[in-house]
Amino acid sequence: MYGISQKLNSKIIWQALLLMSVIFMVFMVPATAATIEENSESIANLETALTVMWLIIAGAIVFLMHAGFSLVEIGLTRTKNTANILMKNFMTICLGVVVYWAVGWGIMYGADYAGLIGIDQFFLQGADNAVWNSWWFQMVFAATGATIVSGAMAERTDFKAYLIYTVLMVALIYPVYGHWVWSGAGILTSGFIVDAIGVAHHDFAGSGVVHSIGGYAALAGVLVVGPRIGKFKNGKALAIPGHSLPLAFLGTLILAFGWVGFNGGSTLDANDPFVSLVIANTFLAGASGCIAVMFITWMKTGKPDPSLTANGLLAGLVAITAPCGSVSNWGAVIIGLIGGIIVYAGVMFNENVLKLDDPVGAIAVHGYTGSWGLLAVGLFALGTGEGSILEGAAYTAETAGLLYGGGVQLLLIQIVAVILSIVWAFGISLIIFKALDLTIGLRVSEEHEITGLDVVEHGISAYPEFMILKE
Amino acid sequence: MYGISQKLNSKIIWQALLLMSVIFMVFMVPATAATIEENSESIANLETALTVMWLIIAGAIVFLMHAGFSLVEIGLTRTKNTANILMKNFMTICLGVVVYWAVGWGIMYGADYAGLIGIDQFFLQGADNAVWNSWWFQMVFAATGATIVSGAMAERTDFKAYLIYTVLMVALIYPVYGHWVWSGAGILTSGFIVDAIGVAHHDFAGSGVVHSIGGYAALAGVLVVGPRIGKFKNGKALAIPGHSLPLAFLGTLILAFGWVGFNGGSTLDANDPFVSLVIANTFLAGASGCIAVMFITWMKTGKPDPSLTANGLLAGLVAITAPCGSVSNWGAVIIGLIGGIIVYAGVMFNENVLKLDDPVGAIAVHGYTGSWGLLAVGLFALGTGEGSILEGAAYTAETAGLLYGGGVQLLLIQIVAVILSIVWAFGISLIIFKALDLTIGLRVSEEHEITGLDVVEHGISAYPEFMILKE
Amino acid sequence: MYGISQKLNSKIIWQALLLMSVIFMVFMVPATAATIEENSESIANLETALTVMWLIIAGAIVFLMHAGFSLVEIGLTRTKNTANILMKNFMTICLGVVVYWAVGWGIMYGADYAGLIGIDQFFLQGADNAVWNSWWFQMVFAATGATIVSGAMAERTDFKAYLIYTVLMVALIYPVYGHWVWSGAGILTSGFIVDAIGVAHHDFAGSGVVHSIGGYAALAGVLVVGPRIGKFKNGKALAIPGHSLPLAFLGTLILAFGWVGFNGGSTLDANDPFVSLVIANTFLAGASGCIAVMFITWMKTGKPDPSLTANGLLAGLVAITAPCGSVSNWGAVIIGLIGGIIVYAGVMFNENVLKLDDPVGAIAVHGYTGSWGLLAVGLFALGTGEGSILEGAAYTAETAGLLYGGGVQLLLIQIVAVILSIVWAFGISLIIFKALDLTIGLRVSEEHEITGLDVVEHGISAYPEFMILKE
Repeated sequence: MYGISQKLNSKIIWQALLLMSVIFMVFMVPATAATIEENSESIANLETALTVMWLIIAGAIVFLMHAGFSLVEIGLTRTKNTANILMKNFMTICLGVVVYWAVGWGIMYGADYAGLIGIDQFFLQGADNAVWNSWWFQMVFAATGATIVSGAMAERTDFKAYLIYTVLMVALIYPVYGHWVWSGAGILTSGFIVDAIGVAHHDFAGSGVVHSIGGYAALAGVLVVGPRIGKFKNGKALAIPGHSLPLAFLGTLILAFGWVGFNGGSTLDANDPFVSLVIANTFLAGASGCIAVMFITWMKTGKPDPSLTANGLLAGLVAITAPCGSVSNWGAVIIGLIGGIIVYAGVMFNENVLKLDDPVGAIAVHGYTGSWGLLAVGLFALGTGEGSILEGAAYTAETAGLLYGGGVQLLLIQIVAVILSIVWAFGISLIIFKALDLTIGLRVSEEHEITGLDVVEHGISAYPEFMILKE
Repeated sequence: MYGISQKLNSKIIWQALLLMSVIFMVFMVPATAATIEENSESIANLETALTVMWLIIAGAIVFLMHAGFSLVEIGLTRTKNTANILMKNFMTICLGVVVYWAVGWGIMYGADYAGLIGIDQFFLQGADNAVWNSWWFQMVFAATGATIVSGAMAERTDFKAYLIYTVLMVALIYPVYGHWVWSGAGILTSGFIVDAIGVAHHDFAGSGVVHSIGGYAALAGVLVVGPRIGKFKNGKALAIPGHSLPLAFLGTLILAFGWVGFNGGSTLDANDPFVSLVIANTFLAGASGCIAVMFITWMKTGKPDPSLTANGLLAGLVAITAPCGSVSNWGAVIIGLIGGIIVYAGVMFNENVLKLDDPVGAIAVHGYTGSWGLLAVGLFALGTGEGSILEGAAYTAETAGLLYGGGVQLLLIQIVAVILSIVWAFGISLIIFKALDLTIGLRVSEEHEITGLDVVEHGISAYPEFMILKE
Repeated sequence: MYGISQKLNSKIIWQALLLMSVIFMVFMVPATAATIEENSESIANLETALTVMWLIIAGAIVFLMHAGFSLVEIGLTRTKNTANILMKNFMTICLGVVVYWAVGWGIMYGADYAGLIGIDQFFLQGADNAVWNSWWFQMVFAATGATIVSGAMAERTDFKAYLIYTVLMVALIYPVYGHWVWSGAGILTSGFIVDAIGVAHHDFAGSGVVHSIGGYAALAGVLVVGPRIGKFKNGKALAIPGHSLPLAFLGTLILAFGWVGFNGGSTLDANDPFVSLVIANTFLAGASGCIAVMFITWMKTGKPDPSLTANGLLAGLVAITAPCGSVSNWGAVIIGLIGGIIVYAGVMFNENVLKLDDPVGAIAVHGYTGSWGLLAVGLFALGTGEGSILEGAAYTAETAGLLYGGGVQLLLIQIVAVILSIVWAFGISLIIFKALDLTIGLRVSEEHEITGLDVVEHGISAYPEFMILKE
């Protein structure tokens, strides 16, 4: 009895154990499995939420850059055109919001046609939260191109003509080139050019897409509208001092602040730890550009020049905009230094050789230095190969640049992009500005220019209580 | 032997297997179960941390709006009162911090009494991290109402009287109405009014709570204090140009930047993906308001007016503040456009019909357009019903508006809120301003007004080195 | 048969059940276990990502403080030196970026030598994402010390000499003291002093490290460079009014905005919920300082003084910078109030007793009030003991202060830090400024000072179109 009972007991215990273990698994393990999945889902939601928040904040910071551009432009020009420039920049962002919603986004990120242009999602048709989030961040970039142009053409351009150009810039010029580079389906990241060269074009945050497009459009505008009265005398460039250095410097610092959002946000993913390198490189390059120009002007004239030095900071920032996620700190310093040299040389070249009148130096800062930024990727990119500090980085140029043993391929595709950006932005803008000039007129009358655009175009004065020196 | 041994072995193997499986479950599964819970807890903490950070940053951005308000107000007024206006706005936020800590928060979010007022948590008694976080975000809103009033009453109001009013605004006027709408226990979201109509009032980020309260309080102030000397001549309004358009525009852009925090932060939850729609709608409406006013002034006077256009942006932003999370992009554009029309008509009506002197247009921008924003919810809300793009959105008006088939209920409760906000803000402010006028005096003397408040009230000049034109 | 068959069946069923359960565990449980670990890893990554983002944004907000400092300094000085001051502040941050990258970071956070100095990581050698992130946030702090000095020495200091000093400040003076306090290995948080007293020094966000180091360096500079021509007449201080109150106030508000990043970011961990207390305390103290000074000046002169009141806000903010995470709301209010009193008394003492000429009040705001902030920790800290509202807070002073029953220990180590910060910052700066004075000359010539540094040092005028009153 005992034996059997024991055996039975033993068997019952084993079976009970087994049953319990099955029950446990049926009730517990599936339950926890579900929770694991729920956790995974919550984690994915959090990763998305972090990115959404990051892009909203980064976009807000970039939005404030429009205040920065306004201040730099009015600071470096004359009191009689201040209200007009403020209005131009203000309408640029306000029209930019609506036009990029209605047309620009669709052209840039809509379904691809032939690698050239997007063809749907106009008016954000069918948008969801992800699209609204992306649109916000992309929209604040879109208006920047036009704002760059407004600075170069300040103090003599017809308000109405400028507005029409701005609409076309945000609806067409910017998003078409943006489609080529950033849509994933454009001719600079896929298709026959890329196949022929072997690597895709890399323009991280838009040295090319935003800055050089704006800069070469500005070049076209400056050529068509011509220099301000009094800028050149007997073929020699004369200084027309800006009316408020404090506003110019405040604007420059707001722009530098904005670059945190501009380059930092361009990771498009708040979970990528390499954003910290992006920020460090951005400010190392900007500071290097600034220091370079300060010393150059000091050596050339015996006095460090404030407004050129401010442009030196911007030049370093523009130059690093494409390569900031792909180069070392030392690379960033050198790219910034060269950016500073280019902006100084570019401003001098434009004024003294090309006889261009660009009151804020936009062509040199955004055009020339933007192109330098694209080329710098091809030279300084570390690549994501084994052993690189950028191994595992997501938004970096994959191939190393020429100076880091990656060969000439990356540099080649960057050169192609430089050429395409110049041809497109300069070409289409030249046509538009010529057309505007021949129809409604691009330039105000001589009399109006001398009087100042504030009174003529808006019927007011920006500083009605202050006594202003006559020229 | 072999057979038995085999059988025994087989049995032992099975039992060993069972034992191992039980041991496995005892040691492993409970361990992982614990970790799952730990993960869930970590995830919940992260969700909270993300919201905490979002509200700190959003609050910081809203804090900066006080710089924006300062700049708009001094930009649109005269140099002789600049220091005074700067001080008023500066003390508004500094007093606001302390008063909203001591009293305002408790009135607004303390334990409810009769749906009318909160009655504890004064001095943030018993606060924890969650309360400090909420307080920070709510506090930066609270001082905004008073700041709106300061603009409308600028250039002739006694400094001391204004400070007293500000304390009452932040301690009482704002938080009482805020309690009605945002405490969850107030008369506009629960109780007999809501029961009678059938839906709760929806004012997402404060078209009513912040803006129209400020705007109608300003109306009372402007009525009691009267117009500035020289504003009306033979019953006709004369323009008194502001002294610095750059500061007015910089201020406007800082305010627009601030709206990212104002509307975006009002989700109060960084994990809600619909924040992206909030941001998109906010800027679509603001831009539409701006464009509307630019074209209206262009058509009316032949010249696009800069300061009215800047107010057009603000009008669009104020109008969308209530409905930004409840309407489509198209809805936002239309709400903004109508906001622009209202602000233009409102400014004209105030000046030419009511003969009110509101130097910055605060009554129209914040009062009238704020009310329009509340009504717009009742018209354009998409509702969270099945098929709506807002299905699942948390902070949206649940019921659809009149134009989207939701019937008249939502519009009705919004109309009630409009009426209540006007009656409360205008009524209580009228009493307070009258009382101040009869006791310490609300208005400076004629002589002091002509001299300017900077010298009289503060003994300094805002621009001591600049030559100022005599009026 | 039936019996056996049944028994067999039963046995087979049990065995099948057991097998299934083992298979289930082999395939399912390990799979979910792996996923739990993956989830844990993803959560850890998210916590890091949130902190990374928080520090980038907080750093960006602190970066903008350099615009704030620039505006405050030019606002409180004269038009003839505006461009010079703008350039100094601009070069301070730009040099700061590069110098703190090359040298400062390594001195501050490199491997410790004797508790005194860091000795590696120059040029961020071997940096990874975590280092780049920390560097960014620390870098924006580093340049602040020098900027404080620039304000105190404004309007008469040689540009070249200032730049050299700035490089030494960012490379050496700031990071050495920073190493003592924040490296974890420095003499104020470990080693014989701490052992002797029994508690470590606590300076949360840098009342001492940033502000009082800057303030006492400024004191040395002001002593060596001497007062501006015309500041003292027959031993009596004369007011030299600043040229733009709007810029001074805008700068002050930008600085206050910056403190969200300055104190908030100093948690160095976005997952710590006590950041909300930090923010609440920061603004309660700032507002209290502002209100205190407004009433003091009102009582003393009959008129509330705008620029002193603005300094009152800054004083409250500087004072709370060390204790913001360690005190109650009431503590913060009192610390801020006393900060306001100190800054008023300090400014008066400096001008009338010490006969120092500090155009922006930097010595009082940052030096005296910074030291007060350190002492306030020793008085008001709540400690993290059981029952404290700060139980569980990570970055709080562990020991309670004197007024909260923690005894005199914490106060003692804070006093030691105050003394060390004065001795180090004042001493080394005195040596450097003397050396600069004896070599290249610290002060511009009398003629140049009267002409103004803009024309002399930079060949331009900050406001070339405005008519400026002769002194």
